[in-house]
Amino acid sequence: MKQLTARQVAEISGGKLIGDPNTLITGAASLKSARQDQVSFIGSKKYLHQLDQSRAGVVLVDKKLEQELTDGHTFVVCDNVDAAFSEILLVFAPEAITYAPGIHPSAVIDPSVSIGKKVYIGANVVIEANCVIGDDTAIGAGTFIGREVKIGQANRIAPNVTIMHRCIIGNQNILHPGVVVGADGFGFIPGPHGLEKVAQTGIVQIDDDVEIGANSTIDRARFEKTWIKSNVKIDNQVMIAHNVEIGESTIMIAQTGVAGSTKIGRDVIIAGRAGINGHITLGDGVKVAGTSGVVKSVPAGGIVVGTPAEGQREFMGRRALPKKVKRLSDKLDVLKKEVQQLKNK
Amino acid sequence: MKQLTARQVAEISGGKLIGDPNTLITGAASLKSARQDQVSFIGSKKYLHQLDQSRAGVVLVDKKLEQELTDGHTFVVCDNVDAAFSEILLVFAPEAITYAPGIHPSAVIDPSVSIGKKVYIGANVVIEANCVIGDDTAIGAGTFIGREVKIGQANRIAPNVTIMHRCIIGNQNILHPGVVVGADGFGFIPGPHGLEKVAQTGIVQIDDDVEIGANSTIDRARFEKTWIKSNVKIDNQVMIAHNVEIGESTIMIAQTGVAGSTKIGRDVIIAGRAGINGHITLGDGVKVAGTSGVVKSVPAGGIVVGTPAEGQREFMGRRALPKKVKRLSDKLDVLKKEVQQLKNK
Amino acid sequence: MKQLTARQVAEISGGKLIGDPNTLITGAASLKSARQDQVSFIGSKKYLHQLDQSRAGVVLVDKKLEQELTDGHTFVVCDNVDAAFSEILLVFAPEAITYAPGIHPSAVIDPSVSIGKKVYIGANVVIEANCVIGDDTAIGAGTFIGREVKIGQANRIAPNVTIMHRCIIGNQNILHPGVVVGADGFGFIPGPHGLEKVAQTGIVQIDDDVEIGANSTIDRARFEKTWIKSNVKIDNQVMIAHNVEIGESTIMIAQTGVAGSTKIGRDVIIAGRAGINGHITLGDGVKVAGTSGVVKSVPAGGIVVGTPAEGQREFMGRRALPKKVKRLSDKLDVLKKEVQQLKNK
Repeated sequence: MKQLTARQVAEISGGKLIGDPNTLITGAASLKSARQDQVSFIGSKKYLHQLDQSRAGVVLVDKKLEQELTDGHTFVVCDNVDAAFSEILLVFAPEAITYAPGIHPSAVIDPSVSIGKKVYIGANVVIEANCVIGDDTAIGAGTFIGREVKIGQANRIAPNVTIMHRCIIGNQNILHPGVVVGADGFGFIPGPHGLEKVAQTGIVQIDDDVEIGANSTIDRARFEKTWIKSNVKIDNQVMIAHNVEIGESTIMIAQTGVAGSTKIGRDVIIAGRAGINGHITLGDGVKVAGTSGVVKSVPAGGIVVGTPAEGQREFMGRRALPKKVKRLSDKLDVLKKEVQQLKNK
Repeated sequence: MKQLTARQVAEISGGKLIGDPNTLITGAASLKSARQDQVSFIGSKKYLHQLDQSRAGVVLVDKKLEQELTDGHTFVVCDNVDAAFSEILLVFAPEAITYAPGIHPSAVIDPSVSIGKKVYIGANVVIEANCVIGDDTAIGAGTFIGREVKIGQANRIAPNVTIMHRCIIGNQNILHPGVVVGADGFGFIPGPHGLEKVAQTGIVQIDDDVEIGANSTIDRARFEKTWIKSNVKIDNQVMIAHNVEIGESTIMIAQTGVAGSTKIGRDVIIAGRAGINGHITLGDGVKVAGTSGVVKSVPAGGIVVGTPAEGQREFMGRRALPKKVKRLSDKLDVLKKEVQQLKNK
Repeated sequence: MKQLTARQVAEISGGKLIGDPNTLITGAASLKSARQDQVSFIGSKKYLHQLDQSRAGVVLVDKKLEQELTDGHTFVVCDNVDAAFSEILLVFAPEAITYAPGIHPSAVIDPSVSIGKKVYIGANVVIEANCVIGDDTAIGAGTFIGREVKIGQANRIAPNVTIMHRCIIGNQNILHPGVVVGADGFGFIPGPHGLEKVAQTGIVQIDDDVEIGANSTIDRARFEKTWIKSNVKIDNQVMIAHNVEIGESTIMIAQTGVAGSTKIGRDVIIAGRAGINGHITLGDGVKVAGTSGVVKSVPAGGIVVGTPAEGQREFMGRRALPKKVKRLSDKLDVLKKEVQQLKNK
């Protein structure tokens, strides 16, 4: 069994040790469930009340909480407790699952496909004509890759993913199970025989270091491309419509949706379950609160909340309306009495 | 063709017959579409107006509606009309689809996998190394099961499901198509080279008698486990983030989402399209209205509605604001006139 | 390389040429990214400011913008610029991906299945006993079709789709990847041993010319059928619960959801991320604004917005409340001063 002393924990995490350096730990757990031989962590004041009851042998603590600590545990005070705990978790984690290069005999790969070095292709994968698969890329079982798709190096594509024809995937991307890249965008024109489909002739382009969560869908462009730029992180069940652009390092939490042709800048954070209207622009660094419905463009750095989304001040003012109305009503009643007294005179 | 008399319907459903015991029925349908030889049901006052037009030969009726009945149909009055109608439906339903034990020759199963008795494994299923599949479990075509997954007895796993490495599935669970269990949780730390992935080293554990709807996703924990306890019922397109816990017999309707590390109690009901914030607690028996966005913890038994979610009274008060403001405005106008009259004097 | 003169563009699009008929174009692009040898389009005043900077050689213009045009481009003025641009896009689009009839040897098809003429069945497709597949239908790789499913003619079913037992699919439908048709509806009755599953004995019926977006789910009926009528267009990640009916030519944008037994009329438009309650009716031609939560029935032609959804006038009144309250407060302050002056006299 792997084990670390508190001193080793402090060394690995680069933190400051407070308490017994020889405390032995053999695993990591949450404050609530940790045993005496486990290390835990606390990053927010909110969880301080769990510290007294916790049996954790060693606790990593964010430095901003250092003044709040009481006796009873061995602590390691860290600059970035989240990153530090991740390091410790890796020591005790079971060995990572990796796939040795090789192509499963059940995979159905068109002879025209170009496959790089050290590629893993799982069972029942289907790769159609004229695709290119770069070095060190792994493709999980049951995944479908349509015609003329270009996939770069060192991608990790999960089982049961669907990548439709002509899409372009760069390097070091992670696609989780159930992801669909390059289904048709949604477009119809009323015609003499009902709604007529607008051909979706473009592609999806995903640059590098992008992660896309389970069952998310990214539609192909009507023309040109739907474009996910480098380092974008997309959670599960996110929907990105045709011709959308997402800027570098933007984060989209689960179940958000972006309608067609909207341009989202870099370093934007869209919290869970938010919806973004089509044909608008979100500037760099915009923050969208969870569940918001953004109908208008937001300039760089803007923070919006609510549906239809507005600034935090407007939103808080709106939330405070019941109290304001109550106060108005009280004031009015007082004034009414005064007027009555004047009339009585 | 199967047929029942009204008397037999009453016997099967344990209800009280009103009308002709010999009315013959050969099928079940809704009030609107039922023919004279079909049985229908009515469970709510809301549908009473459909009763007069309905041609249904026999109508199951909830006992609370007994006083409202008029002539023209044969009725069976039931304590629980929903359950009673389900019994009758089963009589006329086409034979249930079941899969005889056996392993399809196209399935790709690692030799190290342990497979119990009377197991069904469909075409193109992939089961990786060191998995355990318990007795009487059925696994639909095209489903992927990653390394070291443990699956108990009598589970019904649909086609095209994805269960990632090391997850644990108990007994008598039902997973519908497109479900993804154990994709990585969504975690990143800003680093010198952009957003760095936080390793997700934990698992998903699903206990017994759980049902999970089509295309729902349950992410693996950052450490320890994401935990779906026994008898939890999850509808389609539900998203459960890493390290969430869902208590026994909790119901989550379609398109709801729960953010990371939130703990949900037992017997909770979360209506459709609601979102639950991360790092909060919903006590036992909490009810969340559809489309609500719950940002703070809710104590046991609480009922919340709206975004951000609040109590029903606060919510109703907020909804009534336009009327309150109108009334205030009217009162103010009256007072203004009175003041004017005083000034005129 | 394909190329068109401006004159040819005008001919193909049936528009009126303004400028040099010999301008040569070799492709199509957006106003922002177009080069001098590319054609672009402008359909809304909102994008007029992009026109000056655009290098596009030819610009298709909606006739309502004709008065706004300035020199510097060759224009083609069109009655329906959207449809016209689609025509031009098709000229330059890469050849459409089509699948020649044939059955991949890796497909697992029960001998009892009836297969029409000119059918394409991709790699690793699974078709269970007693299915019928009509002429000219294409079924993408990895798709699962359960027992006794009937599929008509000229359908285009994408890879990794799941169609469960006994469902009925008409003609000329398009199902995108990850779609699940016919998973169990979500129904439970509290019983002595916890929540008991209500058997879902019905089917899903999809008529003709329906399109269903990636990862959408349509549940089978508890009894009878969940029914998607002809020409309905459903975007990605839409959820349709058991026993719902969707009328002809209705449009449902991405991530919408409809709860059980609700009836939706024809020509309804439900914008993105809206939720529709169960057991209600939306009349023909109803429009639901994006992200709305519709809790009550809406008569034909109604337009609703917000959560809970209400008419546009009510919604706008509610949005204007902060201003109304501010005005009331100001008026009250003025009156208070007047009363004070009266008292001082």
